[in-house]
Amino acid sequence: MRIPILKLHDYLLISIQTELDDQTAMDFQEDLLNKIHSTGAIGVVIDLTSVEIIDSFIAKVLGDVVSMADLMGAQVVFTGIQPAVSMTLIDLGIHLQDVPTALDLEQGLSKLKQELEEK
Amino acid sequence: MRIPILKLHDYLLISIQTELDDQTAMDFQEDLLNKIHSTGAIGVVIDLTSVEIIDSFIAKVLGDVVSMADLMGAQVVFTGIQPAVSMTLIDLGIHLQDVPTALDLEQGLSKLKQELEEK
Repeated sequence: MRIPILKLHDYLLISIQTELDDQTAMDFQEDLLNKIHSTGAIGVVIDLTSVEIIDSFIAKVLGDVVSMADLMGAQVVFTGIQPAVSMTLIDLGIHLQDVPTALDLEQGLSKLKQELEEK
Repeated sequence: MRIPILKLHDYLLISIQTELDDQTAMDFQEDLLNKIHSTGAIGVVIDLTSVEIIDSFIAKVLGDVVSMADLMGAQVVFTGIQPAVSMTLIDLGIHLQDVPTALDLEQGLSKLKQELEEK
């Protein structure tokens, strides 16, 4: 099953509520970029609240999707990153330095609006 | 895979982007009711844009979930019902009479706010 991507005004909302395998992650990357293109979205919130563990491949895919979306003109915010996931990201040297993060979907959307206004 | 349910303020948003089989539909019903209970949501938008066909069992599950959510104090709005799906619902005698519908997620949320203000 593909991960559903919701469009709300100028934003795309994604809540990943399944453990990501490699194929699902790649499909998600492709679907998200296509959706940014087709909707002209300027911001994306990816909620990882239900993701309890990630491996190096998935971490790379998520890191890449931020840069790819950025090239297409859309800002990504991650929300709900769990302790184990944050540890994996840092251990792997994936710092997501320019990527805003927030606690949950509401705060992610607020942060996104704020980031986009500052640009 | 379970269908992801997003919480945004007092609302739950669901976009069904897969063909629903019987088990997925039953899981979805259970997950949604649990989520209404745990979040105290007062409204639910279920987007069916990507659902191209439904059978009588799924139609009944969707009809039931509206009544169940209502008992729990949450109003359901369906959005993006496709022609073939609307035909199936009417042919099966499922009129969803008291259920507001809208074209897409944005309009569904507006409709939900409007319905809840009228109460």
